[in-house]
Amino acid sequence: MANDVKKVVLAYSGGLDTSVILKWLEDTYGCEVVTFTADIGQGEELEPARAKAQAMGVKEIYIDDLREEFVRDFVFPMFRANALYEGEYLLGTSIARPLIAKRLVEIANETGADAVSHGATGKGNDQVRFELGAYALKPGIRVIAPWREWDLNSREKLLAYAEQHGIPVEMKRGKKSPYSMDANLLHISYEGGPLEDPWFEAEEDMWRWSVSPEAAPDKPEYVEITYEKGDPVALNGEPMSPATLLATLNRIGGAHGIGRLDLVENRYVGMKSRGCYETPGGTILLKAHRAIESITMDREAAHLKDELMPRYASLIYNGYWWSPERRMMQSLIDASQVHVNGVVRIKLYKGNVIVAGRKSESDSLFDAHIATFEDDAGAYNQKDAEGFIKLNALRMRIAAQRGR
Amino acid sequence: MANDVKKVVLAYSGGLDTSVILKWLEDTYGCEVVTFTADIGQGEELEPARAKAQAMGVKEIYIDDLREEFVRDFVFPMFRANALYEGEYLLGTSIARPLIAKRLVEIANETGADAVSHGATGKGNDQVRFELGAYALKPGIRVIAPWREWDLNSREKLLAYAEQHGIPVEMKRGKKSPYSMDANLLHISYEGGPLEDPWFEAEEDMWRWSVSPEAAPDKPEYVEITYEKGDPVALNGEPMSPATLLATLNRIGGAHGIGRLDLVENRYVGMKSRGCYETPGGTILLKAHRAIESITMDREAAHLKDELMPRYASLIYNGYWWSPERRMMQSLIDASQVHVNGVVRIKLYKGNVIVAGRKSESDSLFDAHIATFEDDAGAYNQKDAEGFIKLNALRMRIAAQRGR
Amino acid sequence: MANDVKKVVLAYSGGLDTSVILKWLEDTYGCEVVTFTADIGQGEELEPARAKAQAMGVKEIYIDDLREEFVRDFVFPMFRANALYEGEYLLGTSIARPLIAKRLVEIANETGADAVSHGATGKGNDQVRFELGAYALKPGIRVIAPWREWDLNSREKLLAYAEQHGIPVEMKRGKKSPYSMDANLLHISYEGGPLEDPWFEAEEDMWRWSVSPEAAPDKPEYVEITYEKGDPVALNGEPMSPATLLATLNRIGGAHGIGRLDLVENRYVGMKSRGCYETPGGTILLKAHRAIESITMDREAAHLKDELMPRYASLIYNGYWWSPERRMMQSLIDASQVHVNGVVRIKLYKGNVIVAGRKSESDSLFDAHIATFEDDAGAYNQKDAEGFIKLNALRMRIAAQRGR
Amino acid sequence: MANDVKKVVLAYSGGLDTSVILKWLEDTYGCEVVTFTADIGQGEELEPARAKAQAMGVKEIYIDDLREEFVRDFVFPMFRANALYEGEYLLGTSIARPLIAKRLVEIANETGADAVSHGATGKGNDQVRFELGAYALKPGIRVIAPWREWDLNSREKLLAYAEQHGIPVEMKRGKKSPYSMDANLLHISYEGGPLEDPWFEAEEDMWRWSVSPEAAPDKPEYVEITYEKGDPVALNGEPMSPATLLATLNRIGGAHGIGRLDLVENRYVGMKSRGCYETPGGTILLKAHRAIESITMDREAAHLKDELMPRYASLIYNGYWWSPERRMMQSLIDASQVHVNGVVRIKLYKGNVIVAGRKSESDSLFDAHIATFEDDAGAYNQKDAEGFIKLNALRMRIAAQRGR
Repeated sequence: MANDVKKVVLAYSGGLDTSVILKWLEDTYGCEVVTFTADIGQGEELEPARAKAQAMGVKEIYIDDLREEFVRDFVFPMFRANALYEGEYLLGTSIARPLIAKRLVEIANETGADAVSHGATGKGNDQVRFELGAYALKPGIRVIAPWREWDLNSREKLLAYAEQHGIPVEMKRGKKSPYSMDANLLHISYEGGPLEDPWFEAEEDMWRWSVSPEAAPDKPEYVEITYEKGDPVALNGEPMSPATLLATLNRIGGAHGIGRLDLVENRYVGMKSRGCYETPGGTILLKAHRAIESITMDREAAHLKDELMPRYASLIYNGYWWSPERRMMQSLIDASQVHVNGVVRIKLYKGNVIVAGRKSESDSLFDAHIATFEDDAGAYNQKDAEGFIKLNALRMRIAAQRGR
Repeated sequence: MANDVKKVVLAYSGGLDTSVILKWLEDTYGCEVVTFTADIGQGEELEPARAKAQAMGVKEIYIDDLREEFVRDFVFPMFRANALYEGEYLLGTSIARPLIAKRLVEIANETGADAVSHGATGKGNDQVRFELGAYALKPGIRVIAPWREWDLNSREKLLAYAEQHGIPVEMKRGKKSPYSMDANLLHISYEGGPLEDPWFEAEEDMWRWSVSPEAAPDKPEYVEITYEKGDPVALNGEPMSPATLLATLNRIGGAHGIGRLDLVENRYVGMKSRGCYETPGGTILLKAHRAIESITMDREAAHLKDELMPRYASLIYNGYWWSPERRMMQSLIDASQVHVNGVVRIKLYKGNVIVAGRKSESDSLFDAHIATFEDDAGAYNQKDAEGFIKLNALRMRIAAQRGR
Repeated sequence: MANDVKKVVLAYSGGLDTSVILKWLEDTYGCEVVTFTADIGQGEELEPARAKAQAMGVKEIYIDDLREEFVRDFVFPMFRANALYEGEYLLGTSIARPLIAKRLVEIANETGADAVSHGATGKGNDQVRFELGAYALKPGIRVIAPWREWDLNSREKLLAYAEQHGIPVEMKRGKKSPYSMDANLLHISYEGGPLEDPWFEAEEDMWRWSVSPEAAPDKPEYVEITYEKGDPVALNGEPMSPATLLATLNRIGGAHGIGRLDLVENRYVGMKSRGCYETPGGTILLKAHRAIESITMDREAAHLKDELMPRYASLIYNGYWWSPERRMMQSLIDASQVHVNGVVRIKLYKGNVIVAGRKSESDSLFDAHIATFEDDAGAYNQKDAEGFIKLNALRMRIAAQRGR
Repeated sequence: MANDVKKVVLAYSGGLDTSVILKWLEDTYGCEVVTFTADIGQGEELEPARAKAQAMGVKEIYIDDLREEFVRDFVFPMFRANALYEGEYLLGTSIARPLIAKRLVEIANETGADAVSHGATGKGNDQVRFELGAYALKPGIRVIAPWREWDLNSREKLLAYAEQHGIPVEMKRGKKSPYSMDANLLHISYEGGPLEDPWFEAEEDMWRWSVSPEAAPDKPEYVEITYEKGDPVALNGEPMSPATLLATLNRIGGAHGIGRLDLVENRYVGMKSRGCYETPGGTILLKAHRAIESITMDREAAHLKDELMPRYASLIYNGYWWSPERRMMQSLIDASQVHVNGVVRIKLYKGNVIVAGRKSESDSLFDAHIATFEDDAGAYNQKDAEGFIKLNALRMRIAAQRGR
């Protein structure tokens, strides 16, 4: 079975794990390896990955800047839904995987590879997200998940394998972080190590993208975010591309201690796991999007979205971005965003994201003449409420008359 | 029609509006008025209401301390659902109305009254909540909503009516607040006045229960909340009654600038309205409840709750507490809380509610042996993931083979 | 208030009720009346309505054949959802009302009318459907619902009014039917009279569109229905327009005793009501549509549709066709129908609609090679099921280990 | 791994497959086998299974009559939900598996067995249902699924194995049926063979429990079913135990050609599969239960149930009977059934189940005085409808004024 693979596209970071995988694939499957390294805003140089792949003899090396595509076609569509997994998690890791899966398949098609491979373990969600995506886009693809196959199940064994096979191991950032981390333009995540005790409070020096609320400036900062059809398009009046806008909000939010989250979540494979996340820009955008929807979206449209949201979020968390049901729900969500246009004013202060104002020249449904506590000059007939209540109560009155 | 009412129970605060209503009911309906004033934690003395009612000749005066019942039987059951209306509002006003409706009906039964009356206007949600409750509990009851009937549709006309009928008007707190306010143990709300412009930022001197995050202490404070069957029962290890616990959290949270909310919401009667809310204790409890559920509740149980929550919250917002569908959903929610036992450690700092730890001796489903990134000694077989993914992907692979 | 209406568009059938309304509108409001009579397949001549309107002096008379639009743009989109209200009712009356509302508004715009009027009573659903549609499409429109205003609340008073005002009353079909009926291309409905006792079995001579199963032929009949993108487009291989196809199925189905329904339903205004319905073609199409979906639609797409269906059906029943939430759901539903192409073979026999076969050259997801009980030559690896089950069970195993 | 199993409880029918499994388990695992054979109404003698097990040297033989428990604790609770998988399937096989799983675990506990085994294949749903149940009830249990392990993947190999090991093979019912069948008190199912072509119409001689509609009597039969708290308790006034009642309805229904179903369904493991089902009694009970609910259940309670039903049905279909989410939903459903009391009159005729009447002395919410088309003497104020409609329309009017 092993020797029927001729060429495999590997999602390659240039780090220890995927370098070992690269070598292990060659040795185990006797196959050629194509490396694919993407910039999705993880904040690391990509050229070292190219150099390393070259040094390891890789002939086909793909290095892509996917930042705009990532934010425009994945993050923003998801944010139109106000998606939160289990009420809190902004799905930073989950939303990047379908894009990686798509590029792996595209590169497999371009290079004539018959398999793809990734460095995700057999315990996590990412293997599912990569592989469901790959299978949905190219049903005959072979997927190789070395962590589920090999016996290199500890860092020591990995290092030994690397040394034995002449794989250079850089010890970057001094000592190895105790955390398993993942970063992209939407967030950085931390798992493992001391976090495996849910009673343990995350240490301050773990966090990398944001200062603590305590260390944030004593003066608040206001930002204005302009929305068009549910997507943010400008900051403080300045038009920005999706990736630029999100990166800018990450910088501003991080400086104000915004977007830290510490939770225990339920993985698709069945266990609970502790995760810490920093999502400065995303946290601001979630609050702002709800605010612009609050004045431009119909009540029942908003409620329908809210009721479907947990399910939509689970689909993304579980790796079903490329499924028909996610696409159907996206149709519904996108149909709701046509009128979500306007500006939200946000105050940022020491971890707080506070809505300070929202307006929409073109699409506000807030009608002060009707809502007012003052005389409304007949805009609303209070007597209508009696019939409204009486008929809404009718079924309960009939039941109560029967002694219920 | 007017003169067929003999006795009416009035939800009476002792303020200008309900004092005018009292008189107006007597004059318009020629009926006897029973006053009902409840302490649900609004933070005002009740005895002045008694004195005023006596001064106005009321013979049957009910004054009840409903604080424990309110928190135990209404707030806490709702909090088991992590209920938020439109993603943000903690339903502070909504959850108090069914209790008032219930007491109005009980007092009507005790006093032989044939009607109840309240001071809510014809534009708001509260009229619906009072009246749906009253009709559901006593289907033949007559409800009198003066704001929908009379022509005293401004403060000036009210004051003129009061003067004309000798109703004493105290000018408390100096000048009249420009806001329409409502308070109980769960929250205080502000509507109207300058808030009717959603672009206008709420002024600092509007807020009454909390300091601003800026004015909050520079040192964080930690609290530990103990849960039993989904309800908080102790603070920092000290057992407390429901009302005491919530009041204590209000005090602590308010001191740390916690629980302010400014939003535009959709009323049941059809318009959008701006509301500002302070819910210090509730904001802490929502975060803490999710945290204790995160380690004690099954994934699918939690997801099911999350999917039903928006609807449950709408039911409460819209006044359907006493409906069969709310009771059915409560059965489902309560069934999920049996194992929600444990302790949550919360850090409070300048508006931030941060989960610092969660533990449950008896009911934690967090299994570090399975979740660990280290060698798990066979607790979890990574190879299982392959079949899991393959079969979850099967339907999408078949579709992709058909060219979808 | 009454005399500020200048011109009103009346949904006019030519029958007694709407003839009385025509006259009453002129008298009460002193306004001009425009009549609108539509052919939506109710099976009655329209020219008599024109003659009657002319005889009553109406100057602007609209008579429209809306049958194709009705089936194409209302019935078929709804059938894509497999919509059933309360598990059984095919929404025959409900789905016609939004079209009438739309035409009333269009005609009001064309004729410069400032109001519309209809003959639905204040107890039913139809008033809501007409008026929600009218308000959604023309928010400033005035709606006049005579049954809610006048005191002609019995047939006797109507007849007296007619006689008094010289309105010709034809006694068609001999004696007056004891039932309130409504018909269009999708169904005919019966309410009232002896049906007001839910224990009373509907009498055979009530039904008009179908023979009883007992009276149906002893030989079954097979029909083949071809679907494109979820809509039926041909019968037994012969392409047909939407209205022709539905009418043909009504004829065939009715001859085989198909499509009778007798139920107690919950009206939007709060009471229960008994209704009997004949929907021969619709009953066949519902069964056939599910059958073609069963081989062409992804599992989760189908389940998502099924979960949303009751809500979608309620929206239509309650009159919210023109609402944003119905349109959003339609986006989701329509997105699911792209691949719903193929042929269904149906056997009709004495009230039974039996699926005898379904096939789709282009879009079948039924893969006999995988499903087979015989040796599948590796199309499916049974060992995958172990991991699939193990990981799906993991959360429950962990819980069980904790003694749950 | 194989030789660490000491004793295994086998779900044993006495047929060829499970007899081969019995022997194979002994040989492969060197373990003792406990057989468990249940009467859940499949209509076969159980004593031959005992004799066969004895003949094969089994020492611990369990033979249980589970018919009443099956109907009372599994079928009836499910029927309270009006459960249908994918709109049509009554879940006859699915609902029996959790009971078998429970007994397997109980017997494992009683006999000190460390494993359970079953004869379901690796392609179907039943393996999932058995195993999820077993794991949920006894997390440390070992499950052996021979079909996923061995290479006896055809009937020929099974027969050869049987002959080689001296396992007696009776050729019952003449030639082997081409169908894979499963039966219990709720239904009998057919899969495989010629049914693997979804265009092929099931042959008349396949069906075993019912006559064809064509062969059914020319005279209809009426039955009256009495409900208490949502469960049927009497037939034609005669109280019956759950199993007796269902068996009686199966007999009556089958005689009238009722309850045949032919569909393509989506299995949990990912493929589509064709199934034919006969569910005479269940088909009658579904119709009858909806009918008694139609007069006794509140509208919103019924709609909530309807919206949750597809998900509840999927849980059962997928094997999650013993999950916390199914139990939570059951709490909600059961809470809705308190008032579901009364009598339904059903007409059975050549495949048709027709509701001829429904009544409930104690709990009917059908109020003819309100619903009537005649003068209702003030029971309902038609003018209330105006306010009801106006406020329900308000949000759409505001939107339309903004040009939407």
